Amino acid sequence: MQLEQLGEFALIDLIKRDTINKADSVMIGIGDDAAVLKSTPGRLQLVTTDMLVEKVHFDLSTSSAWQLGYKAIGVNLSDIAAMGGVPNHVVISIALPKHLPVDFVVSLYDGMKEICREFGVNIVGGDTVSSPHGLIINVTVLGEVEADKLQRRSGARVGELVVVTGTLGDSGCGLDLLMQGDWQIYSFASSLVSRHLVPKPQVLQGQMLATLGSTSMNDISDGLASEVNEIAHASNVGMRIYSSLIPLSPELQEAALLFGKTAVHYALYGGEDYQLVFTIAPEKFKVLAQVDIGTPLTVIGEVTERSEGILLVAEDGRTSVLEAKGYNHFC
Amino acid sequence: MQLEQLGEFALIDLIKRDTINKADSVMIGIGDDAAVLKSTPGRLQLVTTDMLVEKVHFDLSTSSAWQLGYKAIGVNLSDIAAMGGVPNHVVISIALPKHLPVDFVVSLYDGMKEICREFGVNIVGGDTVSSPHGLIINVTVLGEVEADKLQRRSGARVGELVVVTGTLGDSGCGLDLLMQGDWQIYSFASSLVSRHLVPKPQVLQGQMLATLGSTSMNDISDGLASEVNEIAHASNVGMRIYSSLIPLSPELQEAALLFGKTAVHYALYGGEDYQLVFTIAPEKFKVLAQVDIGTPLTVIGEVTERSEGILLVAEDGRTSVLEAKGYNHFC
Repeated sequence: MQLEQLGEFALIDLIKRDTINKADSVMIGIGDDAAVLKSTPGRLQLVTTDMLVEKVHFDLSTSSAWQLGYKAIGVNLSDIAAMGGVPNHVVISIALPKHLPVDFVVSLYDGMKEICREFGVNIVGGDTVSSPHGLIINVTVLGEVEADKLQRRSGARVGELVVVTGTLGDSGCGLDLLMQGDWQIYSFASSLVSRHLVPKPQVLQGQMLATLGSTSMNDISDGLASEVNEIAHASNVGMRIYSSLIPLSPELQEAALLFGKTAVHYALYGGEDYQLVFTIAPEKFKVLAQVDIGTPLTVIGEVTERSEGILLVAEDGRTSVLEAKGYNHFC
Repeated sequence: MQLEQLGEFALIDLIKRDTINKADSVMIGIGDDAAVLKSTPGRLQLVTTDMLVEKVHFDLSTSSAWQLGYKAIGVNLSDIAAMGGVPNHVVISIALPKHLPVDFVVSLYDGMKEICREFGVNIVGGDTVSSPHGLIINVTVLGEVEADKLQRRSGARVGELVVVTGTLGDSGCGLDLLMQGDWQIYSFASSLVSRHLVPKPQVLQGQMLATLGSTSMNDISDGLASEVNEIAHASNVGMRIYSSLIPLSPELQEAALLFGKTAVHYALYGGEDYQLVFTIAPEKFKVLAQVDIGTPLTVIGEVTERSEGILLVAEDGRTSVLEAKGYNHFC
């Protein structure tokens, strides 16, 4: 069946099922003029929003509806993670081409509902409209954070370490593999492609890092180079990032060769890894390093005086300015 | 200058100016991974979202950028108004064709900033992305309400009055005038066209009505017929709406003739008036009627037993079922 046969109200009935995973905080979910939510006394509210446009941010020839739904929510949860916060609620607006099969939309929401279940997040509202062209998805996430756990970009201090979660560059290389088309023939490709299509936001990790002393944090959505620049500028400090320390998966190291790029290039400029980069005092890191936060942590550099600039240190010790160029969908 | 020459960061700098009108409640606005907001202890959180798609919800040949910006925020404030709430913050996602003039975008945000100033609302975040086709705007509004003021659709009780603010049908007829093109030749047209292009959300009115005893409320976005049906179904009651009581502007009564429709038809099925329809006990209404809430109030019907159905009573006393058909952008 196509959407125009189903109609808006039947579609909303389909969407409404299985949307509440944290019922205590919801007085009204989908179905009135606005959702009505209870906030936790003493916590700060977090809100973040992202719009995903077909042919700009995703391509339905390389992503399934389910994967797209999962990722659309995931990238927003990642922003809440980067503030040290707990995501609670999402509202989803979606512009749908009339001839889209209903099954596609159901599968899209199944992906959204799966990640919401995984992270205990409610879907409390949204808007479903018609699109004369492609599919457009807008997700807004509401979260909360305790004031003393809040991770701003501006909290980095000279002498601290720069640390990242997981491995970097996988997603960007996964995208190149998808674009090339014949990635299935490479044994190393599927993990990279998955990292691009269904990235896992580091939500619990962000909260644990904030509790254990991180002083500034970003999620790595636009490539490491861009993210460390944002932290350094906001914190009014310099940074030295050691390229030999950047954590790279063996799969990336193999796959990068296919495209004549280095694995480090993908890590710095590839984008969409949705890992976290943060700063922390060395003595706090000693404690943190003893704790299993569910993903590896790697020290990749240090915070320096602003006057020293933002530098990439090559394996041979030579330094170059680490520019903020990276992944940018806009222009 | 075109957007692709300006670039994303310069655009965000333009957008960031004059976005905070209620500074106390904002810790971080535009510029980090998420906005950080303080909520008021004891209040419930409200959240609503709407997506506006070019050629579906608006047409740039009939609306200026400024008007579009004003309305995009206004329709969402109207949803908060219909809950009896106070709007506090908005986040705005926008997908922009690359070749759009920068002036257009500045003017669009000027319209948004104007209505935000008027209603004391902050713009605290958003997303700016590229669109391969038309312009798409998604607005999410956060608001608050005291629990005992909350206006659900389900609060109507048998014996109460059905009341509306302002006049109805003007916006729908204004849209027909815009579509016809030569509306400037009619002296009555400009107020109707304004009602369509820059509707005023009844934000203070919604709060005052909630304080003075309304028991259920909707904003009239999809036509009166659809809205009273929503309230009646959610409240498990019937309704009698008297067509002769529906408030109609003289301009509408004149303009409706041009299109061979009745003014009441526009009021019932026209949509986008963004007035409020609510229910209230007769004794409470006596008090309310003494208060100037800044817009006229008109009793248009009464709440009946569910078994009596949802009826439209014609001037001659004959009744017909008032169906929920109306303005629906979706299919």
